[in-house]
Amino acid sequence: MPSYSAPVRDTRFVLDHVVGLDRYANLPGFENATPDLVEAILTEGGKLAAEVLFPLNAVGDREGCTRNPDGSVTTPTGFKQAFNTYVEGGWTTLHAPVEYGGQGLPNVVAAAVGEYVLSSNHSFEMYHGLTSGAVSALLARGSEELKRKYVPNMVSGQWTGTMNLTEPHAGTDLGLIKTKAAPRDDGSYAISGTKIFISSGEHDLAENIIHLVLAKTPGAPDSSKGISLFVVPKFIVNDDGSLGDRNSVSCGSLEHKMGIHGNATCVMNYDGATGWLVGEENKGLAAMFIMMNAARMWVGMQGLGQAEIAYQNAAHYAHDRRQGRALTGPAEPQEKADTLFVHPDVRRMLMEAKALTEGLRALMLWGALQVDLALHAATQEERQAADDLVQLLTPVLKGYGTDKGFDVAVMCQQVFGGHGYIWENGVEQYVRDARIAQIYEGTNGVQAMDLVGRKLPMNGGRALQAFLGIVADEVAQARSDEKLAAIAEALEKASGQLGAATMWLMQNGMKNPDNAGAGAHHYMHILGIVATGLMWLRMARAAAAQLAAGGGDGKFLEAKLVTARFFAERVLPDAGSLRRKIEGGADSLMMLDPEMFLPA
Amino acid sequence: MPSYSAPVRDTRFVLDHVVGLDRYANLPGFENATPDLVEAILTEGGKLAAEVLFPLNAVGDREGCTRNPDGSVTTPTGFKQAFNTYVEGGWTTLHAPVEYGGQGLPNVVAAAVGEYVLSSNHSFEMYHGLTSGAVSALLARGSEELKRKYVPNMVSGQWTGTMNLTEPHAGTDLGLIKTKAAPRDDGSYAISGTKIFISSGEHDLAENIIHLVLAKTPGAPDSSKGISLFVVPKFIVNDDGSLGDRNSVSCGSLEHKMGIHGNATCVMNYDGATGWLVGEENKGLAAMFIMMNAARMWVGMQGLGQAEIAYQNAAHYAHDRRQGRALTGPAEPQEKADTLFVHPDVRRMLMEAKALTEGLRALMLWGALQVDLALHAATQEERQAADDLVQLLTPVLKGYGTDKGFDVAVMCQQVFGGHGYIWENGVEQYVRDARIAQIYEGTNGVQAMDLVGRKLPMNGGRALQAFLGIVADEVAQARSDEKLAAIAEALEKASGQLGAATMWLMQNGMKNPDNAGAGAHHYMHILGIVATGLMWLRMARAAAAQLAAGGGDGKFLEAKLVTARFFAERVLPDAGSLRRKIEGGADSLMMLDPEMFLPA
Repeated sequence: MPSYSAPVRDTRFVLDHVVGLDRYANLPGFENATPDLVEAILTEGGKLAAEVLFPLNAVGDREGCTRNPDGSVTTPTGFKQAFNTYVEGGWTTLHAPVEYGGQGLPNVVAAAVGEYVLSSNHSFEMYHGLTSGAVSALLARGSEELKRKYVPNMVSGQWTGTMNLTEPHAGTDLGLIKTKAAPRDDGSYAISGTKIFISSGEHDLAENIIHLVLAKTPGAPDSSKGISLFVVPKFIVNDDGSLGDRNSVSCGSLEHKMGIHGNATCVMNYDGATGWLVGEENKGLAAMFIMMNAARMWVGMQGLGQAEIAYQNAAHYAHDRRQGRALTGPAEPQEKADTLFVHPDVRRMLMEAKALTEGLRALMLWGALQVDLALHAATQEERQAADDLVQLLTPVLKGYGTDKGFDVAVMCQQVFGGHGYIWENGVEQYVRDARIAQIYEGTNGVQAMDLVGRKLPMNGGRALQAFLGIVADEVAQARSDEKLAAIAEALEKASGQLGAATMWLMQNGMKNPDNAGAGAHHYMHILGIVATGLMWLRMARAAAAQLAAGGGDGKFLEAKLVTARFFAERVLPDAGSLRRKIEGGADSLMMLDPEMFLPA
Repeated sequence: MPSYSAPVRDTRFVLDHVVGLDRYANLPGFENATPDLVEAILTEGGKLAAEVLFPLNAVGDREGCTRNPDGSVTTPTGFKQAFNTYVEGGWTTLHAPVEYGGQGLPNVVAAAVGEYVLSSNHSFEMYHGLTSGAVSALLARGSEELKRKYVPNMVSGQWTGTMNLTEPHAGTDLGLIKTKAAPRDDGSYAISGTKIFISSGEHDLAENIIHLVLAKTPGAPDSSKGISLFVVPKFIVNDDGSLGDRNSVSCGSLEHKMGIHGNATCVMNYDGATGWLVGEENKGLAAMFIMMNAARMWVGMQGLGQAEIAYQNAAHYAHDRRQGRALTGPAEPQEKADTLFVHPDVRRMLMEAKALTEGLRALMLWGALQVDLALHAATQEERQAADDLVQLLTPVLKGYGTDKGFDVAVMCQQVFGGHGYIWENGVEQYVRDARIAQIYEGTNGVQAMDLVGRKLPMNGGRALQAFLGIVADEVAQARSDEKLAAIAEALEKASGQLGAATMWLMQNGMKNPDNAGAGAHHYMHILGIVATGLMWLRMARAAAAQLAAGGGDGKFLEAKLVTARFFAERVLPDAGSLRRKIEGGADSLMMLDPEMFLPA
């Protein structure tokens, strides 16, 4: 039977020693995040995840959602009650602004506990998860009236939100969308068209669903410059806040998917539905990107969440399952066989899962902190530096984070042998669920192009230079400690590969942009590897310092040092081969006539 | 809608230029494999796969198998009729010995067309696929009576066969099995116990099912040295060949699996079922390994089969789907958008899929040829050399072949974006189906240990030395051709990494066997990369020669050269980082107390 227990000890270690939460106690939003409150949030959130949400994860997978003949959608058994518990506990309000009913806590604290919710039930989390992004877009671009009307109930969890971008013929290329917005005399618009792949598009968990919809107004430019953003509620909201007429938006069908069965992925039909413009006409894409960027970090966190749940269960299985003997002779001769832990190849998988999962946790939370600092740091210089990191790291957290989340889930499935391929141990679901995160909110190929084509050259490469400086500082501080020197050297070497790859892309991407495109994916991975390596060196340094001071949990801290060493020996070397692949350039990719890919 | 078309042109290229089928025309079994017959087999087999089996692939996935209240199992709609067509067409008999009703064709020819069957319907193929292995074990170890009684109907497809190894507590570690075989006075045995994960254990496709079952006789040693092999038919076969009583073996339940839903994976209950010993008592594991080794190459072929079907569909999708514009400016300005083929990152995935799929096809068929040569080559020396290659390559074809088969399926799913995550485009099924091949017939970790622990040291490393010699010869022949020099150099470099990794393992695995275990997986991958690289250099050399001679299909041959270059630039570099990982050794894997993997 699968199980889940929130990794509170590890989250605390990251918040204390990588994020350094106490250093920011004087910043707005952080003042309330006292150690006691953070501890309570992590503990209680972990309990909710383990006891309420996790037991519904397999239920959601087996049952899926049902579209009823009247177009309504029923979520899996137990989801409604759990959602009520979630809302009543205030879990939707952590990071939301106080003036709209939120608790105004730092983003990094919400992210820390958010991981637990995602680990325990990815599909469930998505009902509220997209609401936060919708709120961000409304707060940034919506009129005061729209904000007042919609945001408080979205923050409280009474209503949920969606993002409606994709159409059958328009995914990445939103310039191709056909959904129309016809202006009406009263200032509203009549929205007509079909949207697909709409997560949480229809369900029975909330009183109202607030759709944010991309559409084209009459005469708008025939490109991504002609897209506007609209808010289209399922039920019209009266001026007094009560719910009025049912709007003409409905779920036409549910998609049959590989995973995340517990979430309702809808085809949404807009049939002259009433909507209101958010922000300026034809500036919808930029407004949507506010939502999308927040969502991308969140999707990276889904990669971590799936990695953690798969890793925990594989570790338990390896602990309990006895099969074969250690290569060095029976470890427990009194037993019929040793546990899987004696086998080096099982250890290889579990150590890689551990190193990536704990490394990604640190990286995700460090990234989440930068979002806070970009808004609230004391000086403009600090805010700018944090914003640079947010820009640079967002595609990496999403792309590298979800690629590795999936890899870890697959590796952990492998630890189970045949028992990982059947439903009953849970892990095959984690693999299927993790897979979506590499695809949605911009495929990981789109993330890679965002990194190489936009984030890297921004401000003359300032963000990457700053990042390389942070790595160099960390290396310099660790180099003289004999416990850390080998890790620091490996990181320095990988960072050198990152620098060389950057140089190559700058020189050769100018000559031919396809060279940048051809290396983008591998570049995103080198940056992910180096960033995670930076986290490991930082964690190792903190562990070494605590051990030297004689404090902390000795075995836990020793494990950090060993895992950092594993990361240095077994993950960082990939930076070298990735650089060589990038230097292969675009020629061998682009030369063939497309016909040569099809069977004769 | 998904589609499949057998890659006959590419198979022919491999048979002509990598396998060199015509060179062996004078060997037993090969004399009948005339070019015309081979062409007919590939064409007709491809047609059967595309027209009969492929349309049932999605049906099998959706419907799955049903266990009826009486314990019988109904296969998905259409499977029975298709199986009849398959049997009537003689497709089960290709490679089987003439004296048992087979066609006695070379293994490599059966393998070539077998790929098509596996691509088009993995689950369907498994109903007969395991029968071939069961036949091999019976032919190698069974008495004349057993052979006469069972083999002809298994060859003809009238009956199917199974392998019964795994028990709930005994997977890789077969020494732990509990199934008992109690001798009876008439020379038969009463078999009692429970076996799990039994592919095709019960179904409605054949008149009888012949189970090969591992069990322990009274007083047998309490280890893998105390295992015997039994043949246990579903229906007792009378001496006149007619079917008698129903044996007390039954399907207790079907497993719910991630994929291969069309195949019935059964829990089999043996309740004093009548069985007969195959070979000697307590020598069952060796007999089972005859079956297993044949099956392992076959499972490698499943990796290739899934890679091919995923690749074909991704290529079609990229060809038809228009989204975005080329980085170098619109490729088709008259269209609203360019096809996915203009995007370098899509090309990266499709080229890697192409390079691995075509490379694996060559490697699988070259490996299959060695099985023929090990039996039939003219001299003892040649037979020995071929057998060495079979031993060395079997774990690589299975382990590397299925790891890459899965990776290719995942990459091809990514090409579809969101459309790859829903059922209707088929590719998510290929990912789920491909996943099992990394797990069954010995997990890929077991393959890696077989390679490093048994195959590598065998005869003082003779097999690997011979393999490195073949690579060096191929490099020497290609080096002076300017079209091939860069590919040859990259292969030589990767082969050097393989040599260095081998040396490191030999030196350090002696000191501590965990060092060998810790590097086994990566070593298997280096060997797979170099072996596939060898195939690419050979294909490139053949293509260059044909082009120079002005013959052949120019665009197809040019594509071989470009794809070989891609493999050299984008796959071979991994050998370097894998070697470095191996040299990390076992320490950082084995140091941690297992408790440190579990949540606090």
